[in-house]
Amino acid sequence: MKRPGEFELIERFTRPFGRGEGIRVGIGDDAAVLRPPPGQDLVATVDAVVEGVHFTPRFTPEEIGWKALAVNLSDLAAMGARPLWALVALSTPPAADPGRLARIGRGIAACARRHALSVVGGNVTAARQLSLTVTVLGAVGKGRALLRSGGRPGDLLVVSGTLGDAALGLLPGAAPGPRGRQRRPRPRLALGRGVAGIAHAAIDISDGFLQDLGHLCAASGVGARLEADRLPLSPAYRAATRGSRDPFEGALSGGEDYELLLAVPPSRLEALRGAARRASTRVTVVGALEDRPGVRVVEGGRSLRPRREGHDHLRSVRVLGPGSGRA
Amino acid sequence: MKRPGEFELIERFTRPFGRGEGIRVGIGDDAAVLRPPPGQDLVATVDAVVEGVHFTPRFTPEEIGWKALAVNLSDLAAMGARPLWALVALSTPPAADPGRLARIGRGIAACARRHALSVVGGNVTAARQLSLTVTVLGAVGKGRALLRSGGRPGDLLVVSGTLGDAALGLLPGAAPGPRGRQRRPRPRLALGRGVAGIAHAAIDISDGFLQDLGHLCAASGVGARLEADRLPLSPAYRAATRGSRDPFEGALSGGEDYELLLAVPPSRLEALRGAARRASTRVTVVGALEDRPGVRVVEGGRSLRPRREGHDHLRSVRVLGPGSGRA
Repeated sequence: MKRPGEFELIERFTRPFGRGEGIRVGIGDDAAVLRPPPGQDLVATVDAVVEGVHFTPRFTPEEIGWKALAVNLSDLAAMGARPLWALVALSTPPAADPGRLARIGRGIAACARRHALSVVGGNVTAARQLSLTVTVLGAVGKGRALLRSGGRPGDLLVVSGTLGDAALGLLPGAAPGPRGRQRRPRPRLALGRGVAGIAHAAIDISDGFLQDLGHLCAASGVGARLEADRLPLSPAYRAATRGSRDPFEGALSGGEDYELLLAVPPSRLEALRGAARRASTRVTVVGALEDRPGVRVVEGGRSLRPRREGHDHLRSVRVLGPGSGRA
Repeated sequence: MKRPGEFELIERFTRPFGRGEGIRVGIGDDAAVLRPPPGQDLVATVDAVVEGVHFTPRFTPEEIGWKALAVNLSDLAAMGARPLWALVALSTPPAADPGRLARIGRGIAACARRHALSVVGGNVTAARQLSLTVTVLGAVGKGRALLRSGGRPGDLLVVSGTLGDAALGLLPGAAPGPRGRQRRPRPRLALGRGVAGIAHAAIDISDGFLQDLGHLCAASGVGARLEADRLPLSPAYRAATRGSRDPFEGALSGGEDYELLLAVPPSRLEALRGAARRASTRVTVVGALEDRPGVRVVEGGRSLRPRREGHDHLRSVRVLGPGSGRA
């Protein structure tokens, strides 16, 4: 196959990306020109996925593209924001198959269509390792963004969906459920938007439940008590960990769940359940915030000491697993 | 030296970044929360610099950081926009010296301070090669963004500063002037803002003058005639190319100049000169847009055939030189 020049490659890579709300100038000029919705706050975040760190050769190109965008949308979900626009920077070995890159682009486009946002800018550069760095911009009602810092002692800890499946999905021969959680994460955007104004605080679970709970507690200046036997676990996860000495480890520390962890005052629990129903998302109360600093994990009233909190993303570039941290 | 954990590294990397205009929540939550200036358009662009492609081991860490931000600001300059915020994604080998990363952060902070913008978000991830992907957000009066597509036959082609120095700055033993142009590009933000409303079209010269002129012509649906002997060349460039068989090649195709190329109706030339004086920036008329498609380069009335237009950024990951293209 003829190797296309760079500009042809850019064209192929960006062709599936449509035009949407508030876009005066999209891809093709020095920068995009956008009209943010008036009277709302703008929400912005950036995240990267790197070959061999966040995805393996077993991922299809479409899965790589989907994941690159979805992990960013999860951050927007945790702010209660609605996604509007994305900018996608591709780094690729010059010898990469252009058809594979076009398929990655289609994976991004599929995730963008699913969540009603548009890719408005991009960049292609040469590098030794394939990676995608995505910036997502969204909107939220003025002053209504969900922050990590709003938790108060007495707030209930509520988590969406199930935990630990994405880590399970990394294992060879993983069941389709966990494999899909790992490769096609589904950001909890509808839930996030629904609970803005109900929850005191929110964070998305990307680094591992305990580590992200620690971030929320630190930002809110509180501690927490977590009841391990309440953790929402999928049938696939229960089957895979049956008889394990530490059945909660994957759920507590596995990372890449892209669920939301919310701090909700008990008086608003029913409102929260209503919002979760409208978002067709399961939510589970797993503990509460407390005055006393630190996170205590209990099981049937007995203290558990988890072996590790989560991932140090720089521990190794070659070990597959969650590999990036927000600054 | 103790290797700091990832979160300590993020903290060190982001510490120099201050808070500025319109920032409700900066670094430290799932995403930044921002207040765009009401009634203005938002301008957004992303670009990456990669070790061995856009910078060499001869760059100081501060120069790497400066350049990563400055190349993005040049895109904002070409839109006539004012920079507001940046998001910085760092990919780094896990064994990188944290002191070096902190110095890269200081280089970004120095460039941000110089141009009155704030870093509001970031990401750190493991990778085999050091790179920085920066997203910049800015503002421009509604409908006043300078586009590539506004050029009309008869418009004068005007270029800022001098051309070819950055390419010269890559050579071993380069003079301080060209070396500075390569390592600490100075985005033409004041000029860009000053000529919005005067110029019909603009593009920044990152890929090489001829290639970027080709982009402007294609977007505007016009051709151009360029007078090579009018190209603005620095004394250092003239000295380095004295006696060369093709003294214009570096200026026409060198890349990374980060000057602005403007299309200006003759009736507004004096207004443009006034704006350039107020921005303390030299501008030179180098040709004109024409109906006839294609770019013609003439020298003393005689046609020149340049040997190459500019860089194919994916030609090689190991060859140093301009290495990224906007999509």
